[in-house]
Parts: sequence; structure tokens; C-alpha cells
Amino acid sequence: MSSQIGKNIKVTVFGESHGPAIGMVMDNPPAGLRLDFDYISAQNKRRAPGNDKTATPRKEADEPEFLSGVKNGVTTGAPIAVCIRNTNTKSGDYEALLNTPRPSHADYAAFVQSKGHNDVAGGGHFSGRLTAPIVTAGSILRLYLKEKDIEIGGHILKIGTAEDERFDPINIDADSLFSLSKSNFALLNPKAEEKMRAEVESARLEGDSIGGIVEIAVKGLPAGLGGPMFEGVENEIAKAVFGIPAVKGIEFGAGFEFAEMRGSQANDQMYYDGGKVLCTTNNNGGITGGLTNSMPIVFRVAIKPTPSIAKPQQTVDLKTGNNTELIIHGRHDPCIVPRALPAIEAATAIAIANLINEVNS
Amino acid sequence: MSSQIGKNIKVTVFGESHGPAIGMVMDNPPAGLRLDFDYISAQNKRRAPGNDKTATPRKEADEPEFLSGVKNGVTTGAPIAVCIRNTNTKSGDYEALLNTPRPSHADYAAFVQSKGHNDVAGGGHFSGRLTAPIVTAGSILRLYLKEKDIEIGGHILKIGTAEDERFDPINIDADSLFSLSKSNFALLNPKAEEKMRAEVESARLEGDSIGGIVEIAVKGLPAGLGGPMFEGVENEIAKAVFGIPAVKGIEFGAGFEFAEMRGSQANDQMYYDGGKVLCTTNNNGGITGGLTNSMPIVFRVAIKPTPSIAKPQQTVDLKTGNNTELIIHGRHDPCIVPRALPAIEAATAIAIANLINEVNS
Amino acid sequence: MSSQIGKNIKVTVFGESHGPAIGMVMDNPPAGLRLDFDYISAQNKRRAPGNDKTATPRKEADEPEFLSGVKNGVTTGAPIAVCIRNTNTKSGDYEALLNTPRPSHADYAAFVQSKGHNDVAGGGHFSGRLTAPIVTAGSILRLYLKEKDIEIGGHILKIGTAEDERFDPINIDADSLFSLSKSNFALLNPKAEEKMRAEVESARLEGDSIGGIVEIAVKGLPAGLGGPMFEGVENEIAKAVFGIPAVKGIEFGAGFEFAEMRGSQANDQMYYDGGKVLCTTNNNGGITGGLTNSMPIVFRVAIKPTPSIAKPQQTVDLKTGNNTELIIHGRHDPCIVPRALPAIEAATAIAIANLINEVNS
Amino acid sequence: MSSQIGKNIKVTVFGESHGPAIGMVMDNPPAGLRLDFDYISAQNKRRAPGNDKTATPRKEADEPEFLSGVKNGVTTGAPIAVCIRNTNTKSGDYEALLNTPRPSHADYAAFVQSKGHNDVAGGGHFSGRLTAPIVTAGSILRLYLKEKDIEIGGHILKIGTAEDERFDPINIDADSLFSLSKSNFALLNPKAEEKMRAEVESARLEGDSIGGIVEIAVKGLPAGLGGPMFEGVENEIAKAVFGIPAVKGIEFGAGFEFAEMRGSQANDQMYYDGGKVLCTTNNNGGITGGLTNSMPIVFRVAIKPTPSIAKPQQTVDLKTGNNTELIIHGRHDPCIVPRALPAIEAATAIAIANLINEVNS
Repeated sequence: MSSQIGKNIKVTVFGESHGPAIGMVMDNPPAGLRLDFDYISAQNKRRAPGNDKTATPRKEADEPEFLSGVKNGVTTGAPIAVCIRNTNTKSGDYEALLNTPRPSHADYAAFVQSKGHNDVAGGGHFSGRLTAPIVTAGSILRLYLKEKDIEIGGHILKIGTAEDERFDPINIDADSLFSLSKSNFALLNPKAEEKMRAEVESARLEGDSIGGIVEIAVKGLPAGLGGPMFEGVENEIAKAVFGIPAVKGIEFGAGFEFAEMRGSQANDQMYYDGGKVLCTTNNNGGITGGLTNSMPIVFRVAIKPTPSIAKPQQTVDLKTGNNTELIIHGRHDPCIVPRALPAIEAATAIAIANLINEVNS
Repeated sequence: MSSQIGKNIKVTVFGESHGPAIGMVMDNPPAGLRLDFDYISAQNKRRAPGNDKTATPRKEADEPEFLSGVKNGVTTGAPIAVCIRNTNTKSGDYEALLNTPRPSHADYAAFVQSKGHNDVAGGGHFSGRLTAPIVTAGSILRLYLKEKDIEIGGHILKIGTAEDERFDPINIDADSLFSLSKSNFALLNPKAEEKMRAEVESARLEGDSIGGIVEIAVKGLPAGLGGPMFEGVENEIAKAVFGIPAVKGIEFGAGFEFAEMRGSQANDQMYYDGGKVLCTTNNNGGITGGLTNSMPIVFRVAIKPTPSIAKPQQTVDLKTGNNTELIIHGRHDPCIVPRALPAIEAATAIAIANLINEVNS
Repeated sequence: MSSQIGKNIKVTVFGESHGPAIGMVMDNPPAGLRLDFDYISAQNKRRAPGNDKTATPRKEADEPEFLSGVKNGVTTGAPIAVCIRNTNTKSGDYEALLNTPRPSHADYAAFVQSKGHNDVAGGGHFSGRLTAPIVTAGSILRLYLKEKDIEIGGHILKIGTAEDERFDPINIDADSLFSLSKSNFALLNPKAEEKMRAEVESARLEGDSIGGIVEIAVKGLPAGLGGPMFEGVENEIAKAVFGIPAVKGIEFGAGFEFAEMRGSQANDQMYYDGGKVLCTTNNNGGITGGLTNSMPIVFRVAIKPTPSIAKPQQTVDLKTGNNTELIIHGRHDPCIVPRALPAIEAATAIAIANLINEVNS
Repeated sequence: MSSQIGKNIKVTVFGESHGPAIGMVMDNPPAGLRLDFDYISAQNKRRAPGNDKTATPRKEADEPEFLSGVKNGVTTGAPIAVCIRNTNTKSGDYEALLNTPRPSHADYAAFVQSKGHNDVAGGGHFSGRLTAPIVTAGSILRLYLKEKDIEIGGHILKIGTAEDERFDPINIDADSLFSLSKSNFALLNPKAEEKMRAEVESARLEGDSIGGIVEIAVKGLPAGLGGPMFEGVENEIAKAVFGIPAVKGIEFGAGFEFAEMRGSQANDQMYYDGGKVLCTTNNNGGITGGLTNSMPIVFRVAIKPTPSIAKPQQTVDLKTGNNTELIIHGRHDPCIVPRALPAIEAATAIAIANLINEVNS
């Protein structure tokens, strides 16, 4: 069971939802980077539960402790270890789930993989809580990217049938992305909020949950990053983003809409603008042939509804070998989308920082 | 510029469209596998141009020569090197493109990445022709998977607005997948063919191209493969599949449709069936928490229209620094979807074979 | 600055000598392994200072705290994170060294690599103290290997001119190796101890230090592990063992003595012994062609004298750009060899556990 | 069975001694490097048999064909594939060896690893002939290093009891290393040649073989390359060099002689020389704490006598399960040391090129 990402800057995530602590180690981090701990803390808050009505009221302190790799607030280049203690853990809620895997959760598959040795409480290592160290790692690398004028930002594009506007993929500026990345309910058009919240509230009242889509943009990357095949920009971002629980799809630029497009519509026409090569459209979402092409990167990510719902569900009892009904107690998010957004941005940051760090001798 | 994939079975793809040869090396391949050269050859033919009206009439022999790793038709366990000589190369067609990058191709980005040292003719290492060694590598590994009763298959789901049926994700059998994987125009419902071909022909007559979607299924995987985060099944398949040129999106199970779903609809209810744990639905596409869950894997892949079209396009002249118009001559595919399908299946096979080979001690 | 090892079971070491904590994360560890914490603690004690007269009297608690990956004393398969708090840190001793790199230490090179951002106190991340998490990781994996009847052990072969006997490379049994691995001053022939200690004491009294050689054996490996070239058994052990500070050489079997040998002497003649293929000699140290050959693995490791000595030394002042004299204060080991031994055994265990876990499909 | 090396520039070696071809693929090579094919060819000749009396009279053309990654003699950055056809193959000589593994060869271990599927003829993938693609890859990277004023060179230090002088480790210049690297029998002191050749000739006449030691130096590396633990300079060089068949030991700087040294003798005293930090001695062989320290790298490598000798040997018959006597026919090197030298230099070049390419952001 590997929980590592990155070819150059390698991030390993550890911990279980109800164990002593969660955290991460970043191997081969940038040296000489001044850490803005307020920024890191703010990103962790965006992800933490209890800060928005769409989320579970469960409160987590989530204060990352830096164990190594930082001296006087500046990274030394040695591995950075961060530890977040688990405090508010109600293992009791999960006792009942020991032998009755929750539908659409990892429970059953994890049981098979570890031959029954997995930590079941709260999903153990598979818990969404493990995105906290990912956000911490991503925040560090966003500060690193910021020094190179690279900004990552995103917004909630859809919850249920309620939709925000899409990014205008040829007019994205770093400042707006930075503003988005400070919000707990990031939207391009604030008018979308009311309808989205109504979708969530309706699901919550029914003991149910609802899915959504987020849209991410990356601004400031030079052309020529990535690779022709399996280490292209799309590959690396996809590999990172599917690391966030509940992500079930990703599309770059026009994505699935390409299916109905003609080449003459789809191709992004090129021109010089003050010595810089740009495109009149950005259907490719900033990536052609696996490489950045100087346009902003734009992609969308599908997020399934939280599997933990209050309604009764059908499952199996692994002990008795019988079918059984399951009622999940405890506090759960009716909609994980707003909290997944900063985690997806963080995963993107890890992928991008590794691409930047790629050597083309 | 890395063109390698795989953590255990590592495939490195080499070659340029108009260089002496293309090929691949498979490091750490399975030992003792009898190679069915007819099968490998048949898969290469599915990918090769000139075999279907939707494709360019250009003919390529594409006969893979095995240089190593095979003795008397059986793999020895040593690296398998395969070389495919380039014969039908009309470099002349590409002379004109040297300084005028083709819109939506890798040309410009590759020029920047290699500081002008890239091989431009036919896209060089970025050419779609490089999928031939990927198909060869994938075919070898499909034979390996077949020995373990794992079958991969796919079909064309959409071209333009013409659509095939979707897989019934809870009723997929290995034999049907194997049948699909022998077809040059694989469909679940043959009735879809006429409308699809009409879409392609219409684009072709206008000197244009058209995109599409393919759907892939994997049958026979045990539960518990994959990992909780960045080495999950979705991550690894996505990383592999985005290695095929023109792929711009991937979604697993219900994918982007999850956005409008409630948890109560989306969650796959579990039950025992003769001692086996199954689900009544398969919205998760066979993967929960990054792990296989005993249901078939199902995913869809978006493919953009071939960027090479006959219509005039706007681009830049990298030598003069001026904007210019580009006319691409030569023979091109009006629709790459049928030829991309076997390449996507092959990339999937490489990902799956590596997952199977993962050690969970 | 990467501090990671392992292709399958990946161990990342973190921390600085005088930072908040040191530790390690083991990604993709074996699942279902019952941890013998007494064994792990005993191995850590062998490495810790203050337990033998040859070492610095500095005391360190070195109690590893398991943060994740273990439930009721059994590994779950999720990453294992271990944290060891730094308590007895006298940073003051090192203030003076900030700009005057210690000869034969990493100080100067680390300063250049991190552009001055490295943590200087006590060597920071380059400190020998960082072998504590390596020993912890190695101990976990030695328990894992023990379950497969694989035992690693070693002894002090040489300190100064004082020598122990060598292993009889064709008669090594697992029990003796296990006994050796419990000793703080492991020897095959106890008579060697007096002379060795005299060498150390003589160096200590002169404010100097002394080097040595250790010899390691691995018993119980099946034939056929490893690889033909760069992932052979020698490569992997060497890569691991050079990770222990002060290691400057490694030789397998007859090692450098091969130079004067004829093939007819050197070749290990083969014979059947009760259905098992064995050799009459073991000049190859259990490895031929990069692969285990069913004989015990035997190798020797050269260890340089501790660079930190009380005598005045010549160095440079990085601030003023002048040459200067350096006096290192504080408590230091006159001979690191006995404490390096368990660390080298641990590094060997990490290498071997990864080889065992290698898939040959 | 993996035959790959390199974290950034990845070289995969393929082929069997008596198969269609051997070769290598270099993934992620430097772009824009002009290849000096004469240099590459000269290095291959140094390694090839038949060019010196110490070697087998067997002749091999060994002409590397570049299949990809090179355009007009300049690397494009795409993977470089090189293929060397096997021509002079006398498989007949090896028929007899099919079931009787040669002592001290990989034969038996390879048989076990591949469950009998290995290619036995001439050692198959384990043959020393596979160093030809390693030398080719290394030569390309030596040209790359040369552009950065980094030179690698070596000499025969010892054959039997005959010895050359050692490098003066503080006075090594790049030009002398380059001269050494053009010789088929590289020595610092030409007087050593006669006695060395006498050792070889004596072994040859008796149907026997003889071992030796080579010494390698690397000049021109900046300080601060490498890493603190498992990716240090010693680790990476050792991992590469043990990839050359018959290598059984490696020591850096004073190596095993450190055992008898005091810290006060061993420590390399530092001083400023025209703004550069240097050392008065170089006992550390240019590496402290796993990092280059601005002094030349110096290391020695132990090479065992060629296992293939004409004298009768004891082995087993894997088919009958009986002990048996083995007579190896065919032409063999009485001393592999002169031919191993360029291969070890090449492996060193691969390791160094990867270190240079390491990103320290």
C-alpha cells in the first residue's frame, strides 16, 4: 500500500483517521524557501470540516507541526516532516462497521488487500482526513511555485444541477486565482452560491449527499514542460488528482466535448503577441502533445457524492457471510465538493512542482 | 523527455516517425510467457493506418522484430526489445512545417522544450505512429493477463453525435471483450456503425476531422489491487491512457454524471453471491478507494479530433517571428478514434499488468 | 536532498540532529506483521550512544513513537511513520562551527548544496544520529525477514590493527547470526575484544579516533533473487550500506583478494547436497551474476575514523574567506564501529526486504 | 529481471549474447548534444574482444546503430535507442552447458530465477557482451560531461601481484584522464605493463584466468552534488559499477585502509586556494557526507578472475540431479581487467550524469 507521489519532490502521506497522528514527509524539497505559515494554515482551514454549513460540524484542530527540514522558517533542503495529531476521534461510531463494509467506500477492498489487517475505524488510512497532509504539502509547494509566478486556483463549477460559470480559458490571471484560493466556497459568479447551497441542504435534510464538479486553472507555466507520452502534463496531473478521495473523472480543455467537435473548431489557432506565441482559443486547456504550450492549464474534476449517508443501505457481513442492512451513524458531509477543492488544488501543486523541477538538461 | 511507463514492468518507447525505426524495450517482463505472434500482429493491424476507410490510406508494414528476451517463442524474463523499421516515410511533406508549428499539435511546445533540437518531420517522437510499440507492448501483456483470466476490451462509444450503447457495467463477460478486441471498428450495437461512418465521411469530405469517445472494460481482476492515494487503479490507468495522443479526458463508472447524483443513487449496494461479494450497480466502475472491488472496471476516454486537417489554419513562423497561414498537405485520418482504441486498450494493459505485479507482501 | 531508499518498500528518513524530532516513514510496508517492540528497542539501544565505553557518554532516550500503520501491535499495510523526539541537544556546542566546516564532515559540501540554508547544528540532517530511524526501519524488516527464516548478522572484524576471525562463509547458521545481533560489541572470537578496546582507548586518550571493518552475513535467502546488472544483490546492498555515515568501502566474498587469485582457485565448485545445489567454497559471497546462488551472503564494510576529534584542525572560515584553526568541543565517539554495525545490518535488511519483495511474475 | 539504471537519464540494456541483437535505450537523454561517433566507436573498441592479447581472439564488429533520438548527429532529447547486431555467434560451444551451470557464473541462479526459461547460450542476458551497450551509453554521457568540463578516466592498478602506481588524489588533471581513456591497456606507469602481461600470459598458458583491480578518477565536479544517505555519490557510483560483471568490491579514497587510520591522519584538512576550498589530502576520495566536496573523486574496483577457464571443474547436472565434471570449450579471456575498465568508466559516467542532472531547485 503505497501513498507516495512525485518523481523529484516525493511526498509520502501517512496516518489513519483514528490513529495517533496523520502527516507527510516531503523528500527532496526546495531549499531556501521561506514558509508562510499563515498561508499553509489558511489552506488547511479550507479543507478542514466544521468551517462551512455544507460540511460536517465535526471540528478538527488540524494544526500541522513541522518536525524537520525547516530552520528559522526557511526550508533547509532536507526532508520536511509534518505531523498532525488526531484529537477529536470517536472510534465508537465505527465499531459497528468492523465487519460490514460501507457501500462505495474502500472498506471491502481494503479488507481484501490487507488480508483483514486494515484499520477500519473512520476508514483508517483511506479516510478523507488524510487529505490534510496533502493540503499541507501542496501549500508548501504553492509557495514555491508563487516565487516563480505560477498560481493555481479553482472554483466549484457544479453541485447537483446548480452551476457556476466556467473559466474563460484565454483570460485567466494569477491574481484572481489567488483570490479564489482564499475562499471556503470559491465561485466565479457569486450568484451560483444560493442554488448550490440549496442542493446541499436538500440532500442533508434527507440524510443523503450530493456530488459535483470543480474546475482548476494554472497560470504562469512556461511552454515546454512535460513529456510526450506517459509523463506528460495531463498524465501527471491526473495521477495526482485521482489521489483525492471521491474523484472519478478529469477532463482537460474541452474534454468530453471534443467528441462532437470538428478539428477546424477544436484546433487552437496560433499567433504572435508581442513576441509571445499565444492561441486565439484554448480548447486544449494549455497542453498539447503532453507539453505546456504557454496558455493557462484548465481542467475539470468530477466528484462523487459522499458515500457516507444516513439512509439504510445493503451490504454484507464479512463475519457471518450474510447480507445485511447498514445504518451509518455519526456526522458526515452532505457535500464534499467545497472541501475537496483545496485538496485537488494541492494535488495539482505537487504535480506541477515536480514538472517544474524536471530536468531537460 | 521521458517515454517510460511502469513501476515493475517498465516499458520505454523510442523512435521518430521518420527516423530509422521505432520500438520499445520492456524491462522486467514476465518470464515463461508463450508469445502468440498472430495475436500481437492482429493488434498492431487494428492500430495501423490503411485498414479502414476512417483512416489515412497510408500503408505501413509495422512488422515488429523481436530483438531480445524471447527464446523459441517464450519470454526468458530478460528485457524484451522490439524494433519496427520505418519504410513508407515521405519526409518531403513535412519540410514546410519546420518553422510553422501545426495548431493543437506538440510542434511548438516540443520546439521550446528541446530548444529547437526536436525532430519535426511527421511529429518526430510525438507522432501518433509511436503508438505502434505501445500496442506491441500492450499485446504482450494482454497475453500475460489472459493467462490469469483477465481480459481487456473496448468499443467506440461516440463519434461526433453518433453513439453506441454503453457497457452494462454489471454484466460484462471476458469472451465478449475478447471478441471486441478483434474488431477494427468495435461496437456493442452494430447499428451504430452507419451513422458513425457518416460523421467521419462528412468531415473527410470537408478536409476536416472529428472527435469521439471510447469505452473500456476490464474483467477478471481480483479485489484489493491498487492503493489508497496516488497509486490507485484510477491514477495508474489515467497516467497510462493520457499517454495516447489526442486523449483529453477520462471518467470511471458514472464519471461526470456523479455531479447530479445523490449518494443514495450513486452508492453501489453490496451483497453475497455464492460466497463472492458483488454490487447491484457499478457506478464506481469497479474501483472504490483506489482499489479494485471485484466488479468489472469500466471507464470512458475522450479523444479530440485529429489536429491535422486540410483546411487553412493560423500559426506563427518561428524563423521570421510573423503570423502566417498554414496548409497541411499529405494524407491524414479524418477520425483517429478507431485506431486510438487498440492503443488505449494497450496502455490499459500496461497499467493493469503493473498493478497485478504489485507486491502486497 | 533525497533521503529515501527502496523500490517496493520505500523508507524515507527525516530530521535533524538538533531539530524537534527525527524519524522515518515506511511506504508500502508488509501487512499483518506482528511487531516485537522489545526487539526494535534492543536494536536501537545497540546503536544509541552511551551504552559502551567506545562511544560518547552522551545519553539519548531514542524511544521511537509509532504514529501510524500499526494496530494492536500488527502492521496494517498502510505507511508506518515513526518519530523520535530530540531531547538531549546541546546546540551551543555547535554555534562555533557555523562558518568553519569540520574536515571530513559533510559541512562544507552541504553548505554549497543548500546554498547556505542547511542546518549546521550537530551536522543537521547529515548527523550520525539519523541512523536511529534507519535502525528502526531495519528492525521492522528484520522481523519480516525472520518470518521467512532469513537472518542478518554481523561482527566487528577489525579496529585499528586488532582483528577478529572472519566468518567461515560456507558454515553460517541463522542462530549464531541472531546471537551476534544482540551484542553491543559483536565478535566471533571474544579474545579479539581486549586488543580492540585497547586501540579505541589509546585513540580516545589522545583526543583522536580510529577506524575499522565490519563483516556481515545473510542466511536463508533462496537462489535467484536480484538482477543481472544494476539491480543485482551487490548493487542494492552497496547502495543501502553506503547510506550509513563513515562507510567508505564494501567487498563481497573474497573481494579485493580476488585480484591475486586464479579462476581455478576463485571459482566455487558446485555439488548436490540432498537435492540442494551448494558450493564447496564461497568466494563469491553468495552472489553470482548479481543473483543469490543459495550460499550465504558475506560482505565486509570499511568504516573511516570518526571525523570529530579533539585535536586542532585546519579549515576555512566561510564568512571571512580566511584559513583558520578549528577545535571541536563536545563529546564524541573515539570509535564509531560498534555503533555503525547495527546501522549497517539495518540498511542491509532494507535492501534484502526489497529484493525479497521483487516480483518475478 | 530489470536491467535499467538512472533516476533522470534512464538507461535500459537489452539483448542476449547469442540472440539477434543487443543494445540499449536511453530515456530522457540530454538534448542538443553533438555526438562524436569516433569517440563512441573508440570506447567500444577498448571494450571489444580481440584487440589485445590479454583478451579472447574472438572478433566482434560491435558497430552500434542509432535507431532514434539523433538528428544530423545531434541528440533531439527523445529517447536514444542503439542496436548492435550479433554476428559472430557460435552457439554450438554452449549446447553442452545447457544443464551444467558453470561455477561462479550466473547460470544456476538465472535458471532458478527464470524457472528454466533463461537463454543459456553464452550466458544470455548475463553475458559480459552486454557491457557493449553500457559502454555506448556511457560514451554518450561522457561527451555530455565533457561539455561541462567533467572528465572520467581510469587505469589498471593491479593484475595478480603486478601493480601500477596509484593516482595522486590531489593532483589529477582532466587531460591525463582523457589520455588514459584512449588506451587499451591504461597505466599511470608504463613500466607496470610487462609484469602484468606476464601474469596474464602465465594464467593463459595454464588454461586459467587472473583477477585484478582498476582505479577510477573523476575530475571537474562542483561541490555539493549527491545526497546525505541513500542517494549519495558513493551509493550511486557503487550501484552503477556493480552492474559490470565480475566486480566484487569498491572502495573510495583510502577505503579499507581507513581501518588502521586515526582521525588525525584520515581527516582531509581544508584551506582556501584562490577563493576555492581545497584539501591538503584526499583520503575521502572527493566525497564527504555523500556529497562531492570539490576534490577529485577517486575509487578502486576489485575484479574477480574470469570464471570461464579451460580446467575441468565440478558442477551439477540439473537434468539428472547428479554431480558432474565440466570442461568449458571455446575462446575466453584469461584476464578481463583491461576490457572491464572502459565498462566501469562508462557505468561511472551514467551515475555521474544522473547526479549532475539532479535538481536541487
